[in-house]
Amino acid sequence: MKRPRARDLGINIGRMKSGRYNAITDVAGVRVGHVTLIDGQGKLVPGKGPIRTGVTAILPHGSDLFLDKVTGAVLRINGFGEVTNAEQIHEMGFIEGPIMLTNTWNVPRVADAVIDWYVARNPAMGVTTWGISPVVAETSDMFLNDIVGRHVTREQVFRAIDSAKDGAVEEGAVGGGTGMTCYDFKSGIGTASRKLPDKLGGYTVGILVQSNFGWRPQLMIDGVPVGRELIDYKPLRRTSDTPPEMKRDIDSGSIIVVLATDAPCSTRILNRLAMRAQNGLARTGSHTGNTSGDFVIAFSTTRRKKHFNDRLTYLFEQVVEEGDLINHLFWSVVEATEEAVLNSLFKSDTMVGIDDRVAPGLPIEETIALMKKYGHKQVHLP
Amino acid sequence: MKRPRARDLGINIGRMKSGRYNAITDVAGVRVGHVTLIDGQGKLVPGKGPIRTGVTAILPHGSDLFLDKVTGAVLRINGFGEVTNAEQIHEMGFIEGPIMLTNTWNVPRVADAVIDWYVARNPAMGVTTWGISPVVAETSDMFLNDIVGRHVTREQVFRAIDSAKDGAVEEGAVGGGTGMTCYDFKSGIGTASRKLPDKLGGYTVGILVQSNFGWRPQLMIDGVPVGRELIDYKPLRRTSDTPPEMKRDIDSGSIIVVLATDAPCSTRILNRLAMRAQNGLARTGSHTGNTSGDFVIAFSTTRRKKHFNDRLTYLFEQVVEEGDLINHLFWSVVEATEEAVLNSLFKSDTMVGIDDRVAPGLPIEETIALMKKYGHKQVHLP
Amino acid sequence: MKRPRARDLGINIGRMKSGRYNAITDVAGVRVGHVTLIDGQGKLVPGKGPIRTGVTAILPHGSDLFLDKVTGAVLRINGFGEVTNAEQIHEMGFIEGPIMLTNTWNVPRVADAVIDWYVARNPAMGVTTWGISPVVAETSDMFLNDIVGRHVTREQVFRAIDSAKDGAVEEGAVGGGTGMTCYDFKSGIGTASRKLPDKLGGYTVGILVQSNFGWRPQLMIDGVPVGRELIDYKPLRRTSDTPPEMKRDIDSGSIIVVLATDAPCSTRILNRLAMRAQNGLARTGSHTGNTSGDFVIAFSTTRRKKHFNDRLTYLFEQVVEEGDLINHLFWSVVEATEEAVLNSLFKSDTMVGIDDRVAPGLPIEETIALMKKYGHKQVHLP
Amino acid sequence: MKRPRARDLGINIGRMKSGRYNAITDVAGVRVGHVTLIDGQGKLVPGKGPIRTGVTAILPHGSDLFLDKVTGAVLRINGFGEVTNAEQIHEMGFIEGPIMLTNTWNVPRVADAVIDWYVARNPAMGVTTWGISPVVAETSDMFLNDIVGRHVTREQVFRAIDSAKDGAVEEGAVGGGTGMTCYDFKSGIGTASRKLPDKLGGYTVGILVQSNFGWRPQLMIDGVPVGRELIDYKPLRRTSDTPPEMKRDIDSGSIIVVLATDAPCSTRILNRLAMRAQNGLARTGSHTGNTSGDFVIAFSTTRRKKHFNDRLTYLFEQVVEEGDLINHLFWSVVEATEEAVLNSLFKSDTMVGIDDRVAPGLPIEETIALMKKYGHKQVHLP
Repeated sequence: MKRPRARDLGINIGRMKSGRYNAITDVAGVRVGHVTLIDGQGKLVPGKGPIRTGVTAILPHGSDLFLDKVTGAVLRINGFGEVTNAEQIHEMGFIEGPIMLTNTWNVPRVADAVIDWYVARNPAMGVTTWGISPVVAETSDMFLNDIVGRHVTREQVFRAIDSAKDGAVEEGAVGGGTGMTCYDFKSGIGTASRKLPDKLGGYTVGILVQSNFGWRPQLMIDGVPVGRELIDYKPLRRTSDTPPEMKRDIDSGSIIVVLATDAPCSTRILNRLAMRAQNGLARTGSHTGNTSGDFVIAFSTTRRKKHFNDRLTYLFEQVVEEGDLINHLFWSVVEATEEAVLNSLFKSDTMVGIDDRVAPGLPIEETIALMKKYGHKQVHLP
Repeated sequence: MKRPRARDLGINIGRMKSGRYNAITDVAGVRVGHVTLIDGQGKLVPGKGPIRTGVTAILPHGSDLFLDKVTGAVLRINGFGEVTNAEQIHEMGFIEGPIMLTNTWNVPRVADAVIDWYVARNPAMGVTTWGISPVVAETSDMFLNDIVGRHVTREQVFRAIDSAKDGAVEEGAVGGGTGMTCYDFKSGIGTASRKLPDKLGGYTVGILVQSNFGWRPQLMIDGVPVGRELIDYKPLRRTSDTPPEMKRDIDSGSIIVVLATDAPCSTRILNRLAMRAQNGLARTGSHTGNTSGDFVIAFSTTRRKKHFNDRLTYLFEQVVEEGDLINHLFWSVVEATEEAVLNSLFKSDTMVGIDDRVAPGLPIEETIALMKKYGHKQVHLP
Repeated sequence: MKRPRARDLGINIGRMKSGRYNAITDVAGVRVGHVTLIDGQGKLVPGKGPIRTGVTAILPHGSDLFLDKVTGAVLRINGFGEVTNAEQIHEMGFIEGPIMLTNTWNVPRVADAVIDWYVARNPAMGVTTWGISPVVAETSDMFLNDIVGRHVTREQVFRAIDSAKDGAVEEGAVGGGTGMTCYDFKSGIGTASRKLPDKLGGYTVGILVQSNFGWRPQLMIDGVPVGRELIDYKPLRRTSDTPPEMKRDIDSGSIIVVLATDAPCSTRILNRLAMRAQNGLARTGSHTGNTSGDFVIAFSTTRRKKHFNDRLTYLFEQVVEEGDLINHLFWSVVEATEEAVLNSLFKSDTMVGIDDRVAPGLPIEETIALMKKYGHKQVHLP
Repeated sequence: MKRPRARDLGINIGRMKSGRYNAITDVAGVRVGHVTLIDGQGKLVPGKGPIRTGVTAILPHGSDLFLDKVTGAVLRINGFGEVTNAEQIHEMGFIEGPIMLTNTWNVPRVADAVIDWYVARNPAMGVTTWGISPVVAETSDMFLNDIVGRHVTREQVFRAIDSAKDGAVEEGAVGGGTGMTCYDFKSGIGTASRKLPDKLGGYTVGILVQSNFGWRPQLMIDGVPVGRELIDYKPLRRTSDTPPEMKRDIDSGSIIVVLATDAPCSTRILNRLAMRAQNGLARTGSHTGNTSGDFVIAFSTTRRKKHFNDRLTYLFEQVVEEGDLINHLFWSVVEATEEAVLNSLFKSDTMVGIDDRVAPGLPIEETIALMKKYGHKQVHLP
């Protein structure tokens, strides 16, 4: 069975409309590319396999991102994780390349490959102008994947970037999300979007998450305590030798939220939007665990900064932070983040990983029954 | 009818135990004092009345707070508001007096009165040592109260401090919360606590809120969309001349969260705890509105700093940020914040304020019925 | 003798040109008003006198500052001090009233008076729209002044605002700076400015400081160790009963730097400019003492935000952060801050305060001799 | 001629005593290792050479840094640069491996090699416990070096770590500093230390810098405008085709400051110490350029955190932030940073790099003459 998205079941988060694809790509120009690596099974041989990992590239627009940078922001919700070059984004307020999602250990190699990708296109880099500052974010797939192996290659990074496209986004156990788990169910990539009414400018907010956090009893779906009710449903099977600190890592986990908008926002305003992603995460049950690397990487596609610029000033459009527009942007972030996490769960099927560990997919029929039990009568089979 | 707390109705937030009073005062030493001012009715005469306001004092312990400061932190969730001397707490990591809650306009007068209270007790202040840096936080009661009048007097500030006591805490339309509204219902002060199991040190986390935020359709109670269902229940009555920006102010509002713990936390760790209050707020439905002044003021009663100190170093106990203890502290903050907001609603009865504006109390029977409708069968009349 | 400014002695800080008045008022529209309070002498009677204090108002422009707010930023260099409503400026990025400088204890009363000043002009405040968030900053004059008395009255606050004007700015022991000391010499208010060349837009950066920090041996003037050489020159006379913590307070002290520019800067960019004030302070010898309240309050006069605004977006001009313009703005801040501190010293004459304490003026002839000794041959009597 | 350090010339910065080696290694346990790569000459062939680069490892102590982490902090002064895993240090407050300094482009490869180094020693990493979060900082050597080539290999990273030792530290064009320039002179690695008197605990503060910033006219040495006087001395020779943005990069540059202390400091206090490094940099003339990546990486060797820990709390010693100790720690940072930058200049000889570009060494005799001209009569040949 092709697994459904939340909406396919009649689970409609919030009160705002989504964009055409209900995806981050509803923000015009944004592209997403995945490379998914699944290979081998059985006993973990560190450095060899089995492999359950990948890489995802999110491109803020279709032109040269280095020459035509976007206004950006990185928000640390809980900092047990890495987003490379975050400090530069804090200081200068722009993002100058694709946003790459992968596993924790592969961060340096993916960053290095991004440099190669750019140098091949812009030989002036490192010679007559500075180089790209890669933005690579991560969560840990070590529960299902041989993380020691750092299996994402240079060519696969190139492929993730080169294959990025607009339109519908593949979700679930794909790309950087391939080996992830969330609320002790299989998860991965999820996305959603919200579109403001025309009288509020018709702006779009798109969210894409790589989810890898949470403890099952916490999981809430549109307010329904699904996780508490499913506490005895197939547990995350752990081999008997899984040590305590490993359990903790899984329970806490991490999430990367990528936030795109075509609303003209400064870095300060993007930080304000990004902060509302935490509300969306909390509504799925998260307490933002201690060893969680929870970051929001936000950008505005309509505020650009040229790499070469001889003018003294820019003329920037900027949203008025008063009244309905800004609050609707905030609501959009909350709703789309909540829904993107749910989609990352709904779209992910059971996966067997290293040492035959099993991450069960969120059971669809049981979830539907629970939603009905808790008064959500409109929920239905897809 | 004496209005119930959430627990009196069988609404049990989360999975952890509360302390004896389910109040911030469950953290040993913490004291709370309220002065409530309700006077006059009918037409607003700016500067005169009607009056629906007050002041609340939270004392971290019963000794001299200036000579024996507590480790503290102030976290800005959304900064459309004021906490006096927040920058000093950011830098030095201590709080050296009572934490005062009042309305927006009264902040300077309350701060000035706190100085007077201390000088009367410590004549060395301003002569041979520095003075108290008052910590005063606020939300706006201008929907029900003549805020222009700044009606809290010096003597009333003294009384709030002097009357602070441990044990059960009065909730609802009292003290600084007297004239507040939340999710378009009457609200005010609410409190709750969580106590960790003995094997995790038996630490207590206590929360007290002055709630004044939210838009009715957002209100969730333990996951149930109560606000959406009560959208047509007595609206906040507004006089016809209420202008649009006034509505916005009310819809957004503000909240002050005071977080106390006896777990030995540094300022950095207190900030990490404080940050989880946002999760609790989000679980009641908040999107953290644009013009909301949402702050968390946190302190640890067991990390003290002497004003006069001739030693070179302290010996500090500090919680290990690994494993179960820190995560249970985080859960405690999420759960107690959610419950404290609910208590601020449940305990507040309908109030008529300036210009005969009416803030309706959250209807108990209707809420119970909705909880049952959404699968929470155990909810019952108090 | 009328005391000279640094330039009158041939001490030319840096390489950039100053504006017409070499003052913060060189930024078009900026106005400054002082009220200076000097009364009584001899023994300190806490709450009574002697009085050596005052208040200074800096107005970013000549129109209604509440209805026509300026983009602003507050930077904490060292946070042992207070700037009211700093958190709101961090969040929203604007300043909506005059910037008031006074002593530490008078902050609440000055803030309360600013509210009165505004309500008298805008009766909608607190009725149909929110109120002013006053910005009041401070340093401590308790070495020379009866700080307990909080002697600045409501009417004096009104007068400081109402008398603010453009053109030359009075420096030295005036306004909020009346009772301050710096590097163990008498100091107070100082100002300076820098004007960029026309090809860089001709923008102006203006600095005004209220200086109250430093230990004499640290003082450097244009690189010359004047303080070390004057270590035995009239020490700050202290009464024999001055306790150790009092000495520490003086040694550390505080400084408020107000930074104005007509360059179109966002809050993020203003923070970047503000940060360079620390370089200017360091060049006068400061190590940024532990109990120093060192803040920079920055604003751009050409980025305005209307209080009432029905549009969805603004069109903002913004400086390009690349190449020569931004670096010249940074240099301007470094140079003007260094010079403003020196002016606050040069322009302040010896003052006798409470308990007959004496703060000596920086000796002009001795300083000139030292500058020459250290190779600055061009320095001369005014 | 073996080039002198500042002290060898009688240039004594500040008033405090240095440690035995006047080096970061004066903090007991700290070790430093360099690998220096100099190969080829003439025309730049991007990706091939000539090579003028390297890597430096600073180890906070001699035990397993992952199992026995040190309390740490990373401070962004100006964020046009990268320190990997800075966000994790902000959140959790510890550093769990060596601090690596190299050039900008080599950051990912060095980080990847640090992972390999650790996995070889701790096979549990990535299997039953999380992996190392490498801390790699950088400045750009693209003026003299083929930065595109990323010439530092895995084995060279291992060697830098393995060869780290205590005692005297090699300075100048070595390790990560091999290809750097500062104030348009050749620079590289510099170090200095300060030791507090016994009555203040006898603590040591050690600084090591990799300097790569500044514009020659700005250079000040102990207050003397050496750079302004040497403006016509051998300029940084640039090939005629050096484009404008290249010049800007050089003029601005970057600096990494590593700050070690055995004073027991929390992360908050380390941040306060780190912030004073900016004062030291400012005293050498820096305005903290726009495209400068200026970071301070600070740690306390006496505050450790075990990776595996079953206790609930630690008992931590912590410096009292009052009075003389904290201020002397601050002074130590200011003085040692200023001196470390000067040492990085004094110890670096003229270097010819790519395209025959020449970075001249700071001329010793001319500098001595200037110091004397500006009143520093005690300065002498080494």
